[in-house]
Amino acid sequence: MRAVDIIARKRDGQTLTTEEIGFFVNGYVRGEIPDYQAAAWLMAVVLRGMDARETADLTLAMATSGRTLSLRSVAPVVADKHSSGGVGDKTTLVVAPLVAAAGLPVGKMSGRGLGFTGGTLDKLESIPGFEVSLSVDRFIAQVARCGVAISGQTAELAPADGLFYELRNATATVPSIPLIASSIMSKKLAAGADVIVLDVKVGRGAFMKDLGSARRLAELMVDVGRRAGRRVVAVLASMDQPLGYAVGNSLEVAEAVEALRGRGPADLRAHCVVLAAHMLLLGGCARDLSGARELARETLRSGRALARLREMVECQGGDPRVVDDPWAVLPRAPIVVPVAAPREGYVAGLDAEKVGLATLLLGAGRERKGAPIDHRVGVVLHKKVGDRVRPGEPLFTVHAADEASLHRATEEVLAAYSWSGYPVRRPRLVRGVIGAEAAISSE
Amino acid sequence: MRAVDIIARKRDGQTLTTEEIGFFVNGYVRGEIPDYQAAAWLMAVVLRGMDARETADLTLAMATSGRTLSLRSVAPVVADKHSSGGVGDKTTLVVAPLVAAAGLPVGKMSGRGLGFTGGTLDKLESIPGFEVSLSVDRFIAQVARCGVAISGQTAELAPADGLFYELRNATATVPSIPLIASSIMSKKLAAGADVIVLDVKVGRGAFMKDLGSARRLAELMVDVGRRAGRRVVAVLASMDQPLGYAVGNSLEVAEAVEALRGRGPADLRAHCVVLAAHMLLLGGCARDLSGARELARETLRSGRALARLREMVECQGGDPRVVDDPWAVLPRAPIVVPVAAPREGYVAGLDAEKVGLATLLLGAGRERKGAPIDHRVGVVLHKKVGDRVRPGEPLFTVHAADEASLHRATEEVLAAYSWSGYPVRRPRLVRGVIGAEAAISSE
Repeated sequence: MRAVDIIARKRDGQTLTTEEIGFFVNGYVRGEIPDYQAAAWLMAVVLRGMDARETADLTLAMATSGRTLSLRSVAPVVADKHSSGGVGDKTTLVVAPLVAAAGLPVGKMSGRGLGFTGGTLDKLESIPGFEVSLSVDRFIAQVARCGVAISGQTAELAPADGLFYELRNATATVPSIPLIASSIMSKKLAAGADVIVLDVKVGRGAFMKDLGSARRLAELMVDVGRRAGRRVVAVLASMDQPLGYAVGNSLEVAEAVEALRGRGPADLRAHCVVLAAHMLLLGGCARDLSGARELARETLRSGRALARLREMVECQGGDPRVVDDPWAVLPRAPIVVPVAAPREGYVAGLDAEKVGLATLLLGAGRERKGAPIDHRVGVVLHKKVGDRVRPGEPLFTVHAADEASLHRATEEVLAAYSWSGYPVRRPRLVRGVIGAEAAISSE
Repeated sequence: MRAVDIIARKRDGQTLTTEEIGFFVNGYVRGEIPDYQAAAWLMAVVLRGMDARETADLTLAMATSGRTLSLRSVAPVVADKHSSGGVGDKTTLVVAPLVAAAGLPVGKMSGRGLGFTGGTLDKLESIPGFEVSLSVDRFIAQVARCGVAISGQTAELAPADGLFYELRNATATVPSIPLIASSIMSKKLAAGADVIVLDVKVGRGAFMKDLGSARRLAELMVDVGRRAGRRVVAVLASMDQPLGYAVGNSLEVAEAVEALRGRGPADLRAHCVVLAAHMLLLGGCARDLSGARELARETLRSGRALARLREMVECQGGDPRVVDDPWAVLPRAPIVVPVAAPREGYVAGLDAEKVGLATLLLGAGRERKGAPIDHRVGVVLHKKVGDRVRPGEPLFTVHAADEASLHRATEEVLAAYSWSGYPVRRPRLVRGVIGAEAAISSE
């Protein structure tokens, strides 16, 4: 078998065999297939596509390219979740302790990722002392002891994914549904969870801009996960406007704590309950989805979810006071400026991409790998789509490090709003569920 | 400008600007753009294509990536030719001295290439002492003194082509008409000739298997050459059966000498006259094509063409007796076995690819770069398509180094023949001419 022949077959639109895909992935990881052959192959995959079986083979080859965890020693069933990333998406901070508190252990490894705002790891690092780089042994031990652990992806797991991801970034071979699906699922499969709930975002602030692409990605990931013997559901969630009000690392941690108290933005709480319910149902903690949803709500109400966040923060070396009084410990921006509405009316649109860009301008995200992040800065929205706004009411608040970024971000967020003189319906958040035995409707 | 954005634009099927193409080629040659980005870009070009302007820009960027020769100091007009390669193609050995003897200087640089039989350089190296690695200065001086020089491509010219070619071989990005056109034409443009005649082969024994692809390649190369201010014509020539009778390095040199004596295979002589006539017409040595053809024929008849080959061989250090008595100096195979026709009838087909494979089995060609070549071995056909064959007549003769390769090659050549019980028309050799002021019909 020769790499160049495998490239040629994909170039010509043919379907690769399981053996060919395994040969290519393993050869690349071992350094026997050079970057330039992998790059040509990736471009052929982007332009010629891959079917579900090829994608599953690619995913499994990547998942088994390094160490694979078994969490069976910890619990009969362990759950994981993944979000394809959006603006203001702090659901993991809420859902992971919530599901664990409801009785289903959660072991989640996150990538650091690029983007407008930081990823889950960056958000958690807002908490003084919080350690996100757990060794595999410590990760497993913490899932056993505390029922929940969130750690950075270790390089030992699915090393093929890291190699391919870096190469894809440099060679314009990122936008391919099979490659995206295999990248996400290879890490999930290697991390060992039996139950996987995927939060696939669609819209202006998401990588998938249209529902059709998001649905194809979700279907492919569910298919791949099932071929690998996992229980998988994907929730398609709108990301036209940010999720919740807070966008920025410390700000989102504080908002997640609010949500775990049963307060904070209704859309965030509702979406966390949806995701948690699917995890609990797949994990066998409820009979049906409405039961799972009730269990999630009750766990929130009881304060057990919040208590579980405190335990997790303590286990990972963070300051547990963040749960009682977030702003006593989280870093705060030196400049905090509320911005008044420029007009009255109804918010017709709130472009998540523009809000994301504003927080990037403030320093909350990173454009390049390894770039530093300012955990303090961000934007807190006060009005979202469907809200009525009276003249002079505060529209949003900017948390900035300096005047220059304050002004640029303010302009960007103002431009994110569009208006109507007439009432506007609040948009549905959940746009569909893939792979659920009983479909869940929108909240 | 960033390489990754240029890759993305081509991935998305967009047309690249002159500046983008120049940036990419120059960046790659300077080592600022790594192999893996070039590989992804090449695959995007293979699958998305390039228009004529992009191809011309790519060709010029490659042509000017190193030293470019000017032959103006040598003569007002210098001619060059290129063949896209075929089985038994020894036209350069005939056409170059013929055109020079008719009054138009010829400066040709050849690549060594891969393939069934050796390239022009390998054939010339059959002649004891013949030196194919001329320095640029010696090449120019010889064109000035002798009127004709054939040298290996120097690494100083169009280094981008060498880099891209090696990468394309390793990444399954060879089969792309714009990339093939730019590879061929960049070397021709850098080598400085004003008149370029392209012999584009089509058929079983050629890289282009169908007339449509060959025509597109020819049209694109003529267009690119004209955009660069050169006079260019392309001849589309059938390569379903080998050209002439001899296939193998020494054997082809001997046949070329025969052709320069006005003897040897009729198809070879006719094709050499067609190519020479187009070169002479473009070079201003004749009023019209029939005059150019007559000039070529007269130059052959007069013995001046053969005399010019002798001068060229002497100039390049070879044994000039090859012109008087080829087999007194050319290396001969130890085993020479005529093979009788297995049946009587008419030759209906003679698969050039199979004959080429047979000579490769004998050791006349190379599959890998730098592999050694046996100049002695090959096949001499005695019957070609349209010929009547009586039982027991010799069909071909194998020149082999050992018994094992003799048997394998014999089987392969026998399998190359197909038969008819009824008379078969001799096929046309010239299938079209691109870019000629007056089209030349088949001989």
